[in-house]
Amino acid sequence: MFIWNDWYVAAWADELKEQPIGRTLLGEEVVLFRGQDGKAVALENRCAHRGLPLSCGSITGRGIQCGYHGLTFDGEGKCVDVPGQDRIPPRANLRRYPLVEKDQMLWIWMGPPARADASKIVDYPYHNDTTHWPHRHDMYPIRCNGNLLIDNLMDLTHLGYVHGQTIGGDADSHVTATMQITPKDNGLHFMRWMMNCLPPPTFAKAVRFGKQRVDRWQEFDLHIPGAIVQWSGAIDADTGAKEGKREGGFSLRLFHGITPVTESSCLYFWSASNGYRQDEPQATEQLFAEVGRTFKEDWSILEAQQRSLSRYPERNYVDIAADGARLHARRVFERRLAAEQIHVPVSA
Amino acid sequence: MFIWNDWYVAAWADELKEQPIGRTLLGEEVVLFRGQDGKAVALENRCAHRGLPLSCGSITGRGIQCGYHGLTFDGEGKCVDVPGQDRIPPRANLRRYPLVEKDQMLWIWMGPPARADASKIVDYPYHNDTTHWPHRHDMYPIRCNGNLLIDNLMDLTHLGYVHGQTIGGDADSHVTATMQITPKDNGLHFMRWMMNCLPPPTFAKAVRFGKQRVDRWQEFDLHIPGAIVQWSGAIDADTGAKEGKREGGFSLRLFHGITPVTESSCLYFWSASNGYRQDEPQATEQLFAEVGRTFKEDWSILEAQQRSLSRYPERNYVDIAADGARLHARRVFERRLAAEQIHVPVSA
Amino acid sequence: MFIWNDWYVAAWADELKEQPIGRTLLGEEVVLFRGQDGKAVALENRCAHRGLPLSCGSITGRGIQCGYHGLTFDGEGKCVDVPGQDRIPPRANLRRYPLVEKDQMLWIWMGPPARADASKIVDYPYHNDTTHWPHRHDMYPIRCNGNLLIDNLMDLTHLGYVHGQTIGGDADSHVTATMQITPKDNGLHFMRWMMNCLPPPTFAKAVRFGKQRVDRWQEFDLHIPGAIVQWSGAIDADTGAKEGKREGGFSLRLFHGITPVTESSCLYFWSASNGYRQDEPQATEQLFAEVGRTFKEDWSILEAQQRSLSRYPERNYVDIAADGARLHARRVFERRLAAEQIHVPVSA
Repeated sequence: MFIWNDWYVAAWADELKEQPIGRTLLGEEVVLFRGQDGKAVALENRCAHRGLPLSCGSITGRGIQCGYHGLTFDGEGKCVDVPGQDRIPPRANLRRYPLVEKDQMLWIWMGPPARADASKIVDYPYHNDTTHWPHRHDMYPIRCNGNLLIDNLMDLTHLGYVHGQTIGGDADSHVTATMQITPKDNGLHFMRWMMNCLPPPTFAKAVRFGKQRVDRWQEFDLHIPGAIVQWSGAIDADTGAKEGKREGGFSLRLFHGITPVTESSCLYFWSASNGYRQDEPQATEQLFAEVGRTFKEDWSILEAQQRSLSRYPERNYVDIAADGARLHARRVFERRLAAEQIHVPVSA
Repeated sequence: MFIWNDWYVAAWADELKEQPIGRTLLGEEVVLFRGQDGKAVALENRCAHRGLPLSCGSITGRGIQCGYHGLTFDGEGKCVDVPGQDRIPPRANLRRYPLVEKDQMLWIWMGPPARADASKIVDYPYHNDTTHWPHRHDMYPIRCNGNLLIDNLMDLTHLGYVHGQTIGGDADSHVTATMQITPKDNGLHFMRWMMNCLPPPTFAKAVRFGKQRVDRWQEFDLHIPGAIVQWSGAIDADTGAKEGKREGGFSLRLFHGITPVTESSCLYFWSASNGYRQDEPQATEQLFAEVGRTFKEDWSILEAQQRSLSRYPERNYVDIAADGARLHARRVFERRLAAEQIHVPVSA
Repeated sequence: MFIWNDWYVAAWADELKEQPIGRTLLGEEVVLFRGQDGKAVALENRCAHRGLPLSCGSITGRGIQCGYHGLTFDGEGKCVDVPGQDRIPPRANLRRYPLVEKDQMLWIWMGPPARADASKIVDYPYHNDTTHWPHRHDMYPIRCNGNLLIDNLMDLTHLGYVHGQTIGGDADSHVTATMQITPKDNGLHFMRWMMNCLPPPTFAKAVRFGKQRVDRWQEFDLHIPGAIVQWSGAIDADTGAKEGKREGGFSLRLFHGITPVTESSCLYFWSASNGYRQDEPQATEQLFAEVGRTFKEDWSILEAQQRSLSRYPERNYVDIAADGARLHARRVFERRLAAEQIHVPVSA
């Protein structure tokens, strides 16, 4: 069960170069390509003639040309050339998916195109601000339901157990952290504080703190179904972080995009923006490497969890005190699912 | 759905040496072996005792001996030895499949043996004529329905898009080629001419043409369900090719054998015969390498197409002008299927 | 269909060190670990909170701690710690499987715990007698139904065909061996004699016989569903082996533990004990290597047989004279299955 009427990250903008890309998104086969005019486009990924994925084809001045018998489709999915004949059968047109390039990402709308409203796409201006927030990004294809990845980010007590060697820090600090959750119609915001604690390895590698102990925060904005905006950091303990002074220590922004592939797999688009030594490319590279290492720890946990849940479906499990944000996120998801008209994809 | 009452290539004759070979053909498990008398034989591939594939066994003077407990079966499938007892249970006999060695190939009949008529096997004498048509052969296990491979060979407009680097030549020449199709009861013949065109890379590597442009032909004989006989070549433009003079340029004969494994996989037996520099073994090797490279381009396309059709079954696709031969081939296939009595394999 | 009310080997005792092990046994996911008190324990392998396999976790002083959010379970499966809260939900407890460490093996009871009676576990004291029976052991995950492995060991005529290069010897000796089968309620005992025969390669490598020919025996105790105890050996022909004098030649004891994973896969635990040159560690190593090589020959046969039987289910096969012990073993298995109440695993 997917939420259809919303925007998902389909690709990083810089993934689309001379070659088309084929991806399975919400169970459908989609081809992404950038026309010679520079505009990025998403169509169903099969030629109307004999079904070859168009991602096996090539980009021409008129659109995308099938790699088997040469039919060409423009950016609207309209068939504009059938080699060997003048007449273009109207039935040869393909489904087009609304695709918007914004903040270095390509956002796709998989539901009925008429309902697509680009103004509803999550803002993430930091990707464009390479002066204050230089970043690097990646995409992990994870064999778990996308909601398990959201669960993961809603319950940060896992940092002490999963990420002890990276961004974890000591488990007790996580368990005793304070967490203020603000429910929203379409997700939630939470602010988590770990006061007077030891900085975790990743932080200590990145900056030199003045004191041994720090005040550390994690601020999250969840946008169901597929985006999470995070700001985390730490400064010397008792120097006013909680009162709004969050500069001068370690600070990073993370974007998380979660796009379902099937019920048991998803694409995880993430970026890490460096907010502390912005003029040192090496600092950004190091941050990217550390975050990648951290998220690979999650990757392994998430796939083991999915295998277990596939064998023993999700029921009769026990919720604990740390599950507040996760449970709210799931309720929003279920409400959105129920509210949607049953969506019959055009290609079904 | 397979056509049962016809001959298929089961193996190249020279594949069968000291060891038996196990193959899945039309969904059934078959063991092929050459008895010590040199005769090639096909039986169901499982011992009557405990089911071990006989292809795990060994060839003895009396037939094939199971590699588990030593039961032996002769070339008729008759059990002739059960170690430890004198009585041979009649139920221990195995199904035999008619198998005929002809033109360097082993042809198998998977339907009721009584209907097998070896005189109906396609002739391909060129395999035996190593003076005029020295050849080399190969077999590719392709994960696509066998009919997709036949489709591929019935619509040569694909050469311009799939094989630009090998035998393609420029796409426009293919689209404007003339093609004369002669329907037959059991397939079709077509003659395709590309006049006054540039020779493709494979041709130009093989022979030195006197002129820059050539007249090029492709002559195909399709025998549904599993054999295609091809003669292709080119000579200098305007030197009489169309009137029958096809010597002195580039010329090759291709045999294509297509044998279903499952509904979505097949074995592709092909040979390439050198008709231009027959006394140079290196020329035959080079031709074989070029054709192999070409067919691997098809291989990749066919498997991508099959994956797409498995996800979005073959319906609602659009036929185009270039599909004439392909559509006739499919009609013959469907008529043959309908005409067959429902075949219940002995082993079912 | 599995027999639930009996003991199976879950692991070798020395497999459990600092890390937990996850295994699928009789279709269920089980975690095995050794607490800091040294006691080996088996629990269901998924955290009660979010389903992560506990085999991804770590062992602490209180039990096993989940690697995701840190819940801890003791050796009884009782949840003893939930980070961040004092109250432990009773529903968080996990199923415990009776597990007994005996004779260097960990025996598990997968059925209702109340019926587990450790006195019924097969005795195999030789594992503890490193003076007279030094041994080494291994475990092979074989993709075949466990009964095919038992079949294999019940019909030793296969030695001549499968193991000609190892423990086989000449096939005729096997076919003419005498075999005395004693049916038992829960299995059978058989005594097999091959008199005045050539020693097989493995035997001849291990000891120097005084004569060219030997009297050779194989003594088997089958305990349905999962254990076989074997004593095999040979001494010089006509020196009294059959009358009870079995020392002074080649002698080995083999333990075979067969534990189902699924209907078409099992774990094969085996050990080889050296009964001839006990004070030479190298002799035990060599025996282990030879037996391993032999059992890998079986491994390959068994997986080929399983693939064949999966395609052509086990029916209409023919029994032969050598099948006596195998058929009795199957009858016992079927009777045990029928006698069991339908078992609904706690986790279902």
